[in-house]
Amino acid sequence: MSVQPSFIREILKAAGDPNVISFAGGLPDKCLFPTEPLKECMQKVMQTEAESVLQYGGSEGEDSLRNYLSEYYQRYYHLHVPVENILITNGSQQGLDLLGKVLINKNDNVVIESPGYLGAIQSMAIYQPHFLPIPMEQDGMNVSQLKQGLKTPAKLLYCVPDFQNPTGYSYTIENKQAIAEAIEGSGCLIVEDNPYAMIRFTKTRLSTFYQWLPEQTIMLGSFSKTIAPGLRIGWVVAPDPMMRKLVIAKQAADLHTSRLSQRVITEYVRNYDFDDHVELVSSTYSKRAKLMGEVLDDHLGDRIKRSFPSGGMFMWTEFNDPIDTMRLAPIAARNGVVFVPGAAFYPDKGLCSDNLHPVSYPVAHPRDSYNSMRLNFSCASDEQILEGVRRLSQSVKEEREING
Amino acid sequence: MSVQPSFIREILKAAGDPNVISFAGGLPDKCLFPTEPLKECMQKVMQTEAESVLQYGGSEGEDSLRNYLSEYYQRYYHLHVPVENILITNGSQQGLDLLGKVLINKNDNVVIESPGYLGAIQSMAIYQPHFLPIPMEQDGMNVSQLKQGLKTPAKLLYCVPDFQNPTGYSYTIENKQAIAEAIEGSGCLIVEDNPYAMIRFTKTRLSTFYQWLPEQTIMLGSFSKTIAPGLRIGWVVAPDPMMRKLVIAKQAADLHTSRLSQRVITEYVRNYDFDDHVELVSSTYSKRAKLMGEVLDDHLGDRIKRSFPSGGMFMWTEFNDPIDTMRLAPIAARNGVVFVPGAAFYPDKGLCSDNLHPVSYPVAHPRDSYNSMRLNFSCASDEQILEGVRRLSQSVKEEREING
Repeated sequence: MSVQPSFIREILKAAGDPNVISFAGGLPDKCLFPTEPLKECMQKVMQTEAESVLQYGGSEGEDSLRNYLSEYYQRYYHLHVPVENILITNGSQQGLDLLGKVLINKNDNVVIESPGYLGAIQSMAIYQPHFLPIPMEQDGMNVSQLKQGLKTPAKLLYCVPDFQNPTGYSYTIENKQAIAEAIEGSGCLIVEDNPYAMIRFTKTRLSTFYQWLPEQTIMLGSFSKTIAPGLRIGWVVAPDPMMRKLVIAKQAADLHTSRLSQRVITEYVRNYDFDDHVELVSSTYSKRAKLMGEVLDDHLGDRIKRSFPSGGMFMWTEFNDPIDTMRLAPIAARNGVVFVPGAAFYPDKGLCSDNLHPVSYPVAHPRDSYNSMRLNFSCASDEQILEGVRRLSQSVKEEREING
Repeated sequence: MSVQPSFIREILKAAGDPNVISFAGGLPDKCLFPTEPLKECMQKVMQTEAESVLQYGGSEGEDSLRNYLSEYYQRYYHLHVPVENILITNGSQQGLDLLGKVLINKNDNVVIESPGYLGAIQSMAIYQPHFLPIPMEQDGMNVSQLKQGLKTPAKLLYCVPDFQNPTGYSYTIENKQAIAEAIEGSGCLIVEDNPYAMIRFTKTRLSTFYQWLPEQTIMLGSFSKTIAPGLRIGWVVAPDPMMRKLVIAKQAADLHTSRLSQRVITEYVRNYDFDDHVELVSSTYSKRAKLMGEVLDDHLGDRIKRSFPSGGMFMWTEFNDPIDTMRLAPIAARNGVVFVPGAAFYPDKGLCSDNLHPVSYPVAHPRDSYNSMRLNFSCASDEQILEGVRRLSQSVKEEREING
């Protein structure tokens, strides 16, 4: 089995120093957790149903939470998603692992975004597929290259269509429709990973491939970004035949997800103002993204192109100069700021390449991944953003003096 | 991928009728959960470290719990187990799944007990090994047949040496030593699954293969039977190179286990009298096992051989007559009592066989699995044991009238 430690994890460890400003992580801001309401929910759950939540439970998850999620899709997406098609998992990461186990056989073709979410790519890599990376652009996946790639049949297409990790890009409705058309009727399933969908900086309408292709779309969701990741509650929505296999795989994997976590989350979303909380998280991250963008433009505007995220937790930056961010990273770390070099998000090169089996890469790469970096803005204060970008800018000058 | 629903699960569903007495499950008694102390622990954890337990955590698990477990092995087994070799999992079921993922390649030989724990066998079956079942006897695994079997090199040996599921049998120290000798120096790892070890009816000294073969033994443990399964806290102890792979597999599987559950369990075992609680659970189950044995002997003594469990939650019963327990089960269900037919625990025949790839079975089978059944005694009251066995006895009479 080909499993290797995540580079992101290593950077996070290095970022343990309190004097280092980290734009490297992917954590939600712990100061925003709804701690008091969650305390009350825990007390209530333990007061009224302790014997039940402490006992073994069903592999599908608690019905109360699955019912809520069915209503969630109705409310936010105007979609009818049957309760029977919802499986509760330990965060959406487990959904990915179960899908890999159930769907992917060795040498199956799997379409991914390039750059894409490393955790997903590593999770699927264990099942030894052939990855087919398609360029991720400002408005979504490059459709003509996707159509070209799909001439070789693919088992699944994995994507983070809203406020993508690592770029912060979002698929436009037009892009989603064009992808749905390209996929429709093929044997390919779309695995739509949407942990950031609710963290919107503007009131854009939520959309999903499920609207066009309910039988070919698998949706992954999570409360890690909207409530708290430590409780490990995510979910999968899958069509019938897939759902049965996923439940069996879930049973073999760990029997079921913590019932306490499931019931606490359900109490919270049912009885507290979840919408207001999501609004608070979104507006806070929005301000930080705006500030980070402005400060980056001030310090490095002539040297970079950057994304303008309209949600989520990440900003993507590419240098105009041939600056290798792998060389920049240690200089920046010495100056007290860390980030993740872009190469970490490309399965065909860079840090995770020896984790994967040879990747067929049929299309010319639109940019040099070595020039890019991912900056996380959800966990930094205004002061940290100002000072961190200043340190980054200083590090670029030093790097140029050495390598420029 | 070959995954099929568990037969046990189906029986548990059928057992939902409150008028049916269930000896079919494998649940701890919910009335014995330390509910009040756990409530207090949750409040304390949320009062003092909410922001930390609600945030993402390390894949290895919380250091406070890993430290406790290292001391646990010192205290109960007089063993030095380094903290670095302990991984926290979502119950020991996840430990099994991660081991399968990391260790088992298609067609690898895996030695298992016959009869053995279905959940483990199904979990490993996903990775398509060749199972080599070795008869499970009153004093442990049949050593001469194991030696014979090991002439074909095996990747791992999976066993539940103390108060086995489904038989309630335990390996004697002599049996463990003989197995350790047979395994020593081979490339085979012993995976020792020990969820029941602490549920002892007598004060026998705890022992493990780790005493003799620390570099070739992987220990799985769980708080599901001693505290509460709904929190989903188990662990794996593995030698260094294996441990690194397991941590990476855990990260890919679900990043980490619920931090709240981990911290609550740690608070409980550190600050409440865990030993007294385990003693209460053990003595309660011991009384139930004794009663069930006596009532079985009274009603069916001339028809059966049964195990005399000195711990755990299960009693194994074999009919002297050629009674097919698969035919007995529906008659018993109509009479209001359910159990799991023995065939469900044999990978080479019965209910789970089409779940598995063809099994090489080099040794003569010592008994007819169709004659056997597993009876769970942890969840039944005295009245239920009396009435349930009466119903079972009545069902045997009816079955004999039809098929005898």
